[in-house]
Amino acid sequence: MINCPYWQTKRTRVCGIMTGTSLDGVDVAVCDFWIINNIKHYELIAFKTFDISNQIKSKILDVCSQNILISDVSDLNFALSFLYKEAVESLLSEFSILISTIDCFGVHGQTVWHSPIPKKIAKFSVSSTLQLFNGSSFAKLINKPVIYDFRSADIALGGNGAPLIPIFDFEFFASDEEDVVFLNIGGVSNVTYLPKGKDKNKVKAWDTGPGNILIDFATNHFYNQPFDKNGEHSLNGNVNYELFDELKSISFIKTPPPKSTGRELFSKSYFESLVNKYIIEPDDFLSTFSYFTAYSIAENIRLFANRTNTIIASGGGIHNQSIMNNLKIELPNANIKTTEHLGLNPDAKEAVCFAFLAFQFLCGFKSNIISVTGASEETILGVLAL
Amino acid sequence: MINCPYWQTKRTRVCGIMTGTSLDGVDVAVCDFWIINNIKHYELIAFKTFDISNQIKSKILDVCSQNILISDVSDLNFALSFLYKEAVESLLSEFSILISTIDCFGVHGQTVWHSPIPKKIAKFSVSSTLQLFNGSSFAKLINKPVIYDFRSADIALGGNGAPLIPIFDFEFFASDEEDVVFLNIGGVSNVTYLPKGKDKNKVKAWDTGPGNILIDFATNHFYNQPFDKNGEHSLNGNVNYELFDELKSISFIKTPPPKSTGRELFSKSYFESLVNKYIIEPDDFLSTFSYFTAYSIAENIRLFANRTNTIIASGGGIHNQSIMNNLKIELPNANIKTTEHLGLNPDAKEAVCFAFLAFQFLCGFKSNIISVTGASEETILGVLAL
Repeated sequence: MINCPYWQTKRTRVCGIMTGTSLDGVDVAVCDFWIINNIKHYELIAFKTFDISNQIKSKILDVCSQNILISDVSDLNFALSFLYKEAVESLLSEFSILISTIDCFGVHGQTVWHSPIPKKIAKFSVSSTLQLFNGSSFAKLINKPVIYDFRSADIALGGNGAPLIPIFDFEFFASDEEDVVFLNIGGVSNVTYLPKGKDKNKVKAWDTGPGNILIDFATNHFYNQPFDKNGEHSLNGNVNYELFDELKSISFIKTPPPKSTGRELFSKSYFESLVNKYIIEPDDFLSTFSYFTAYSIAENIRLFANRTNTIIASGGGIHNQSIMNNLKIELPNANIKTTEHLGLNPDAKEAVCFAFLAFQFLCGFKSNIISVTGASEETILGVLAL
Repeated sequence: MINCPYWQTKRTRVCGIMTGTSLDGVDVAVCDFWIINNIKHYELIAFKTFDISNQIKSKILDVCSQNILISDVSDLNFALSFLYKEAVESLLSEFSILISTIDCFGVHGQTVWHSPIPKKIAKFSVSSTLQLFNGSSFAKLINKPVIYDFRSADIALGGNGAPLIPIFDFEFFASDEEDVVFLNIGGVSNVTYLPKGKDKNKVKAWDTGPGNILIDFATNHFYNQPFDKNGEHSLNGNVNYELFDELKSISFIKTPPPKSTGRELFSKSYFESLVNKYIIEPDDFLSTFSYFTAYSIAENIRLFANRTNTIIASGGGIHNQSIMNNLKIELPNANIKTTEHLGLNPDAKEAVCFAFLAFQFLCGFKSNIISVTGASEETILGVLAL
């Protein structure tokens, strides 16, 4: 039985699976959820990131970027079920977890298209989103219920279908005593702002500007490495204030929320134009990008979440010491922590969130926050394969 | 609450939506289902076929036949929800049915890829099927639960994901007293063979050869019309036995089931090769194709369902008087009827079947017949959007 109060009365074990657009791995988290006196609780039981083979990675990138055949899409939908199954079985075996203890799976799928802005298709005005993944085939392979396609319902209700993480932040970490900002430093950086008082209607979330994207371009360009490990190159250089002033003038940074950005604004070609224009040391580029990333996050918090005392960070960027140092310099009065301080491995957060969204579906709870996504109403997110 | 005994105790109203690969319309059926003493019952409340606009049709054909962008796939998934919503609202309004009386929807979606034969994707052996349609967006637009993607689970269990109609024939029309054949004359012809005694394990289903496909090619070629209305041209010509003997020699016809065919064998280029080889009147082509269609159906029944007394026909071909006359000539002892004799509009049958599959999901019943699809086990078919 699904979508029913039964699930609100027991400790429920959900396995969440997340693969982001950066294709840096399959995140798998096993997490327990339960409710006592209307308060939700969770416990992360196991987490690990698994590699995506180059063959699958290149097929996904092809689907995103070039002309394809419909058979490619169909095949990948089903192939991901095999990839995820392998990852899940490794995790369960490594942590000695019996699959029989798992009640259901919550799977994000692989985003290959996301367009909340309506477009004319015949006479219809259509927004759409597409996460590759066939939930029904995965449910049969793994022999458990699977909840997936979490973004479509919000899109259909006129929302952006994103971000979906804020409901997790709100349920578990909103405070009666102080404003809290959750900061995720991924390719771009985004924040969830939780004003004190636990009022869902006051939650806001938006992108602040770059996360690791400019730094990644630079380490790739200068050092042929995917990212600046621990921020070593960034720490080694000096900020170039001419370049910094140019970056600072990007109007997106001070635009009031709601707002979102991505590879359109912080593109490879924009990076290349900067490399051609400024004749400076590689590590000075990295140092400046790292400082700009921290500055743009801080400026957004100063402008749009100015009573914030506590900032709780997650995402790959927290491992970049240069970004984290600069953030402390820019926001000297803020208490900056990672989700580790709340007992949650920051790398596991997204996979745990999608496990939580599946738990919400089981219970029949609505998960989109309309002040965040812009949807016309709250709704249950996800679809169910048995 | 879904997948639960509650639905087995009440009269449940389901709206079924079917769009076939021929793109000749959106079939919408409203149908009630209920169970008394373990016997399932149904009543068709309303049915109509709605046009698919040329714009949508040509976008679907593009997706099936040429290189596309992933955005085309994503947009069509959501656009079909708008198309189906419009059709449903027209039907409900025409028949004065309140949407509040409908418990859920069962939607086939638009098949654009179907490949039960496994193929290597990275290291995985992958079969797949893809029906365009985003169930979550439709559920939000129509504000009702939607059950869809009925073929994937059977494919994931090693089956063909088709045919799915036999469970409907078995549940409602299998007889204790006599063998019954359900014949569907679509583009190709297929049969469900229900030996007497209501034993699900003995049900068989297969394609017999052409349905209207060769006749459609000929009316298109000679008369620039999509099909031979009522079989008028076929009735007007004479069978050319030289051509008939060539068609009769196609080995597929006498191959034992399970077997399936389509546009690979009865292709436009095969038709064109016949037109170039035989210098005969257009109506003689039509007459011969019509006779061959009836012959290949009859031969399959004689060879593989030879105790059959009763044949119950549906599909567009039942409106072709020439096919139906020839069938009676070829099977003089059989009692040939259409589903109309069982109180079911033959044009509505497929939409009613997908409504029934949704009802089965609600009840928690398994719907694939493994002697028909070849899957390793029986399973609940479909996924649920709330």
